Amino acid sequence: MSEVIAIYHSILKNRKVEEQAEKIALGLTVGSWTDLPLLEREQLKQHKGRVVYSEIIGEEEGGYKAEMAIAYPSANFSHDIPAILTTVFGKLSLDGKIKLVDLKLSEELTKVFPGPRFGIEEIRTKINVHNRPLVMSIFKGVIGRDMSYLKNQLKNQALGGVDLIKDDEILFENKLTPFENRISEGKKVLDDVYEQTGKRTLYAVNLSGKTFELKDKAKRAKELRADALLFNVYSYGLDVLQALREDEEIGLPIMAHPAFSGAMTSSPFYGVSASLLFGKLNRLAGADFSLFPSPYGSVALDHREAIKTHEYLTENSSLKKGWSVPSAGIHPGLVPLIYDDFGKDTIINAGGGVHGHPNGAVGGGKAFRAAIDAAVSGVTLQEASETSEDLKEAIELWGAKEVVK
Amino acid sequence: MSEVIAIYHSILKNRKVEEQAEKIALGLTVGSWTDLPLLEREQLKQHKGRVVYSEIIGEEEGGYKAEMAIAYPSANFSHDIPAILTTVFGKLSLDGKIKLVDLKLSEELTKVFPGPRFGIEEIRTKINVHNRPLVMSIFKGVIGRDMSYLKNQLKNQALGGVDLIKDDEILFENKLTPFENRISEGKKVLDDVYEQTGKRTLYAVNLSGKTFELKDKAKRAKELRADALLFNVYSYGLDVLQALREDEEIGLPIMAHPAFSGAMTSSPFYGVSASLLFGKLNRLAGADFSLFPSPYGSVALDHREAIKTHEYLTENSSLKKGWSVPSAGIHPGLVPLIYDDFGKDTIINAGGGVHGHPNGAVGGGKAFRAAIDAAVSGVTLQEASETSEDLKEAIELWGAKEVVK
Repeated sequence: MSEVIAIYHSILKNRKVEEQAEKIALGLTVGSWTDLPLLEREQLKQHKGRVVYSEIIGEEEGGYKAEMAIAYPSANFSHDIPAILTTVFGKLSLDGKIKLVDLKLSEELTKVFPGPRFGIEEIRTKINVHNRPLVMSIFKGVIGRDMSYLKNQLKNQALGGVDLIKDDEILFENKLTPFENRISEGKKVLDDVYEQTGKRTLYAVNLSGKTFELKDKAKRAKELRADALLFNVYSYGLDVLQALREDEEIGLPIMAHPAFSGAMTSSPFYGVSASLLFGKLNRLAGADFSLFPSPYGSVALDHREAIKTHEYLTENSSLKKGWSVPSAGIHPGLVPLIYDDFGKDTIINAGGGVHGHPNGAVGGGKAFRAAIDAAVSGVTLQEASETSEDLKEAIELWGAKEVVK
Repeated sequence: MSEVIAIYHSILKNRKVEEQAEKIALGLTVGSWTDLPLLEREQLKQHKGRVVYSEIIGEEEGGYKAEMAIAYPSANFSHDIPAILTTVFGKLSLDGKIKLVDLKLSEELTKVFPGPRFGIEEIRTKINVHNRPLVMSIFKGVIGRDMSYLKNQLKNQALGGVDLIKDDEILFENKLTPFENRISEGKKVLDDVYEQTGKRTLYAVNLSGKTFELKDKAKRAKELRADALLFNVYSYGLDVLQALREDEEIGLPIMAHPAFSGAMTSSPFYGVSASLLFGKLNRLAGADFSLFPSPYGSVALDHREAIKTHEYLTENSSLKKGWSVPSAGIHPGLVPLIYDDFGKDTIINAGGGVHGHPNGAVGGGKAFRAAIDAAVSGVTLQEASETSEDLKEAIELWGAKEVVK
């Protein structure tokens, strides 16, 4: 049967986990059961929530930590993300210490969702890079700056050989660097660099503004030959991401930024797990790229959650695979670790680790590229830095984490 | 200057709160400051974040609880909620134990937002009730049921004399009780009751489905003479609520449901405060009614947060006032307490407290109306129950909390 199974972690005051799970399964579907006449039960059977399993998995916070899996028939909701979230975690999100840790959609239900339009393989084709992790860099300090400042940063980042460059997510529509200018002038810069170096770099421009103006703006971006759209999905809503993905006239790769998501993911007791949001839901809704906090920075995502996010983005499914982009606190010396954790189908994303390089963004990009080549070839950074001065300087500045097998 | 001031609570490891606040103010705006040449400082001055105040307000969780107020110039963002949320709590939401507890928009910025289309006074006019709290009841157990079942519930609720009736927020588009039928057939039921009793009851129908189909659906609702729209704003996005509010062709009262909001509001250390979401942002975006967990139920919203929500919805502003709808765990015996807490411009909202009455929904509604009349007239429930058998039975079942002045 077509359904969604929601998995929750909750802190209970007692060990009566089956009772609690049954209460949720009924409360969020048909309301009551045992006191219903047989005829009504027959009628409501296909709508009744079902406890898949429920168990106490530990003791925490002076109570019992429970894991509950509850199946909701898809006959109960329209097949869109807002209806699913309202069904499985609407009222329940307000009901004490409970966290939605996973959603398992039946195959039938999964097929309703678009998934990434391009996905890993088609993005690789666009930039002609097939056997290594990609590297992305981020604009830095661009608020209040003009186009010449932005173009200069864009050029230096591209000259360093990065594969992608993304707008700062806090750069909105503004007079100094308007959306359309960023695309058209940015494109010229990248075309110039391509002629000079033969290397293609994609630039993800921040799609912002009011929800119902986004589609027109995205279509205009497409006309101006934009490479990709950056989108603050959690300040809007996952269904808006899906709408952008599904519009055939837009047809651009979409990069989902995690801005504001911490409001939902950060607590161990409330909200939604990072892997569900960044991994599963971003992929379902159609993000080609999903940014999330790396497990390496000063404020890091839990390592298992980060790995699970990557797995959800790349596991076999009827949907195309999405790029995991662990972000924040990344410098070239971490590349062996990232490669070991996430493999080749990931994007190494850096801001300070590019711009803060002693040789500027050009040197930063080159250091990352050298570190990636080393990791893929099984060469240590130490060894690789002998042939890359930029990598050597990066390691001197930030250190290196070799992975010993 | 036009700006938004964001107030945060954070847990710091040391007492260096000024340093931390300054880091945020710069990090989320111009990036750096002290190392910039004078000329650049001049250029970026109008974009720089400003620490309004920062102080340690206690010790908690083995650290120092800090309150920080940071002003972000509105030159930095487009004037929409997604841009504001991304600016003030984008990356920052992922940055450790930090909660966004309030936003203060300058008057200039407030005026950009629509606020409720109808607000308290115009809703009162629609139902011709001017000097008491309203009472609302909720459909119960409607998934898998047909139109005749719904119409019967609707009729009984209306006959009890409630002012508003809302759809169950988990009732989506479905074959048994389609959206359009619910409106047109529901309207007939309510017209019949009006002819019989002379009492107007408004029915809020759940507007659901894909984001970009909502406007057309809402317009169709308007054509069918719908009274109001129920909307799961937090499963969509606040900007979608605003778009529905701003569309002149829709022009219906909007009731914001808190489904999924607990993912953001429940943790004391992360996310967004309930009063900001339910009070301030719902009003800015244009909700005529804002539902939130009452401070009385088994899983209650903090009492101060609930009161603050009501204050934000009703304080003087260029925007119309919104209805506070504290919900869950409400029975007639709580009315004196609710009236004392929220005054007359609030909505007393009940599900079980209406349907669970010994005389059914009709008796439940009547008991609430009697309790409200008593509270407004300064009569005790005990006294009032002498002339209302329904109130008497409600009190026998659920008890009563008299407020002694």
